[in-house]
Amino acid sequence: MNGAESLVHTLLACGVDTCFSNPGTSEMHFVAALDRIPGMRCVLGLFEGVVTGAADGYARMTDRPAATLLHCGPGLANGLANLHNARRALSPVVNLVGDQATFHRPLDAPLTADTEGWARPVSAWTRTATRAATVGSDCASAVQAARSAPGGIATLILPSDTCWDEGGVVGTPLPVPAAPQVSPDAVARAVRALRSGEPTLLLLGGRALRADALDVAGGIGAATGGRMMAQTSNARIARGAGRTPISRVPYPVDQAVAALAPFRQLILVGAPPPVGFFAYPNKPGFMASSECQVHVLARPEQDALDALARVAEELGAAPVPHRPAAPRPAPTRGAVTSESVAQTLAALLPEDAIIVDESVTVGRAFFPGTQDAAPHDWLQLTGGAIGEGIPMATGAAIGAPGRRVVGLQADGSAMYTLQGLWTQARERLDVTTVILSNRKYAILLGEYQGVGANPGRTALDMMDLGNPDLDWVRLAAGMGVEAGRADTMEAFADLFSQANARPGPFVIELVV
Amino acid sequence: MNGAESLVHTLLACGVDTCFSNPGTSEMHFVAALDRIPGMRCVLGLFEGVVTGAADGYARMTDRPAATLLHCGPGLANGLANLHNARRALSPVVNLVGDQATFHRPLDAPLTADTEGWARPVSAWTRTATRAATVGSDCASAVQAARSAPGGIATLILPSDTCWDEGGVVGTPLPVPAAPQVSPDAVARAVRALRSGEPTLLLLGGRALRADALDVAGGIGAATGGRMMAQTSNARIARGAGRTPISRVPYPVDQAVAALAPFRQLILVGAPPPVGFFAYPNKPGFMASSECQVHVLARPEQDALDALARVAEELGAAPVPHRPAAPRPAPTRGAVTSESVAQTLAALLPEDAIIVDESVTVGRAFFPGTQDAAPHDWLQLTGGAIGEGIPMATGAAIGAPGRRVVGLQADGSAMYTLQGLWTQARERLDVTTVILSNRKYAILLGEYQGVGANPGRTALDMMDLGNPDLDWVRLAAGMGVEAGRADTMEAFADLFSQANARPGPFVIELVV
Repeated sequence: MNGAESLVHTLLACGVDTCFSNPGTSEMHFVAALDRIPGMRCVLGLFEGVVTGAADGYARMTDRPAATLLHCGPGLANGLANLHNARRALSPVVNLVGDQATFHRPLDAPLTADTEGWARPVSAWTRTATRAATVGSDCASAVQAARSAPGGIATLILPSDTCWDEGGVVGTPLPVPAAPQVSPDAVARAVRALRSGEPTLLLLGGRALRADALDVAGGIGAATGGRMMAQTSNARIARGAGRTPISRVPYPVDQAVAALAPFRQLILVGAPPPVGFFAYPNKPGFMASSECQVHVLARPEQDALDALARVAEELGAAPVPHRPAAPRPAPTRGAVTSESVAQTLAALLPEDAIIVDESVTVGRAFFPGTQDAAPHDWLQLTGGAIGEGIPMATGAAIGAPGRRVVGLQADGSAMYTLQGLWTQARERLDVTTVILSNRKYAILLGEYQGVGANPGRTALDMMDLGNPDLDWVRLAAGMGVEAGRADTMEAFADLFSQANARPGPFVIELVV
Repeated sequence: MNGAESLVHTLLACGVDTCFSNPGTSEMHFVAALDRIPGMRCVLGLFEGVVTGAADGYARMTDRPAATLLHCGPGLANGLANLHNARRALSPVVNLVGDQATFHRPLDAPLTADTEGWARPVSAWTRTATRAATVGSDCASAVQAARSAPGGIATLILPSDTCWDEGGVVGTPLPVPAAPQVSPDAVARAVRALRSGEPTLLLLGGRALRADALDVAGGIGAATGGRMMAQTSNARIARGAGRTPISRVPYPVDQAVAALAPFRQLILVGAPPPVGFFAYPNKPGFMASSECQVHVLARPEQDALDALARVAEELGAAPVPHRPAAPRPAPTRGAVTSESVAQTLAALLPEDAIIVDESVTVGRAFFPGTQDAAPHDWLQLTGGAIGEGIPMATGAAIGAPGRRVVGLQADGSAMYTLQGLWTQARERLDVTTVILSNRKYAILLGEYQGVGANPGRTALDMMDLGNPDLDWVRLAAGMGVEAGRADTMEAFADLFSQANARPGPFVIELVV
């Protein structure tokens, strides 16, 4: 057995059965091993950002890692932005990077780069394999590291000789410790804050945003008058009709400060402290009031559901009963606005859909406007690195077959990783991508005006995506995905219904 | 004057007047400064790999750096693969990366990453600006570093407050030292080797592949019986009718070893020692004979033309006279093969064209088959990180207006950075891109077979780009670039002639 074969056997033994890949020359022995050993679903991406974003989406829907397969330092580099997002989402990923043979590296061949140096900033665990005999145990350690709470990226770099040499040994799956419980002190402090009589906010992140945890948190709120809110960007929120609703800290600094201003007690449950995405002159970086006392009930790696349940027990708070589903609104007609799209989504979203939200400016009304849609999960760009929507939708569809994935996708961001549409076509994934085609980097135009000026020609040229307009119907068709264009809400509603009713991917260019 | 304004003024004062950009929120003050201060040509890329690959192509044609403008760590990450190629090409690039404000970084906002850690492996010079007052001098140092021989990437990271704070001071342009001359000893050793009577090879790289240096090297060969060869992948080679021809070390290891086997004296002129792109079991990493003595006439940062001239003078070797131009071949007819495409290129290539070669497997006959084409420059993928062709062609067209750029582009590689076609359309660049559509990663199929097996279903699924086929006519049209498809040589010759005769970009999908 060579090193590559021991690697594939170990992945399968550890429960990793999906590999998003963009291989190169140095990975051929791994590809050959995948060919010989049944059991691994291999999904090709035509760019590494598709591969890593798909691994993130898969992990968010399965709570298990997929493997990636990347080629040398530059192949890893192409995948780093979505690994950055995956790191912020606390997604488990077994990130495999083939590289120059151990004895070839000193020759500094053209494709040689600092693979490990590029991997470390996004990885919870990084190792370069040294010989075939230990590749199996390296792999078992990588899976363990990826799956250990709170979940992270484990990068295993595989010099090609560690794959082709004989002497591979299948690694023994290693135990994955359960997420640690929070201390009684942390529970007591949260209970004290909630009983303080001061305005109190539970700020939820990570696993605290799944349906069961939201019900418990909602019960705590009902019993104490405490409020709850999710952070601005979240890996996955359970929501829709019947579920406990939760709002999010707004993205714009002024709105975030206003939303958090009333609170004097802030309890973090799997969320970091609320800080601005960016700094601005004369605006705060920390969004809550300076008079607000901050408590940590659960750190991201701790068991948030258990922590909330213990707080609820202490308070005698029962989980909120499931709300009766509100009647669905009707699809809207006429002009395309953020609000009208939100209402149509709320009207027509299929049951148990997965929304992948990279809608940026056009999407400002989507989240609040879809609370009463059919039950769904809402996935966001957690690290702010645009260009993850299409890949994440791809991976989510593979991780959750049978559920419709709906991508709400800003056009500028979509261009970063449009290659993912081809993978959706090849794998016949049930993904409806709504390209919100405003033909500009609208968020930047807003930011520019915040700098205090109206943009001139030069600035407009760097923020305007027209001249020429992107034609998303042709781009999608060029990658084998059927597509249609809508510039009224009636046309959008028709296309959206049709797209969701048929198998396979579909792209709607919604001109806004 | 704020820091951003001092930066723009300093760039212009240092002769940097072109900026390839993909800005984000943290770069808005820089964009505003570009708007207020005339003189900088700003070119938008819809993905950072386009930006950095274009900066590389621009530098190769102008021998001057352009600036980039990237957004935070993940934006830099998206550009790293083509910065890797630029580093291997020794291209000067002033790589500007906006980032979190100095005081915001400790808050670890979602988009915060190890920007400097990612930059260092590709950068000859890296600095994070600390305050507005020194941004101008930081910028002047960056330009100096980028332009100092042999040319490199200077990364200046700009926390947003260093751009928006007042107190900016325009940096004074710093002297750029000329490339150092080689020692008399190095010249003497080369002369001794050439007079040794043993089979001797001049291995040329970098500036030694420009027309003047090739003429001198050719004269040395003619006077001594020494041979000359270029390395496998080169930033830019002057060639075509009338110019001194040069072959390249073949890419496949066995062919490279055979080509270099006869030589007992190897003289490196601006080239590193010849090593394989990858290691293979039981094949050498160093391609020349183990009995071959290696001499360094000029290191990459030294003045290769001067070194060759001094060797020639010592030997009394006159530069080779310009060869009479051979008659152009006729365009071919019938089936599409590597050889027939090469002959048609040789027949129809416009005068003074720039060829950007990312043709991978299909292109094996292109280089030898086009020696007698009209004079042209030949630009290659120097770092092996695929996905640079379209961006490099974009930057070369901006750096060399009036010259037709011809991209010979493998389809799999083209998909990495296809967004560059949109920039070609927006800037109305004279680029003809020939997509060599074989619908597979053919190089990997060859490598896989080298591993000793016929690929099975899983392996084929990772190397086959069909199912669905990419439609490059639609992809190009989706980005505003006119396109046509050819599957015979007659159709290709027609489209190629038409494309080159008209202004602006055109894409030919050549089905092979």
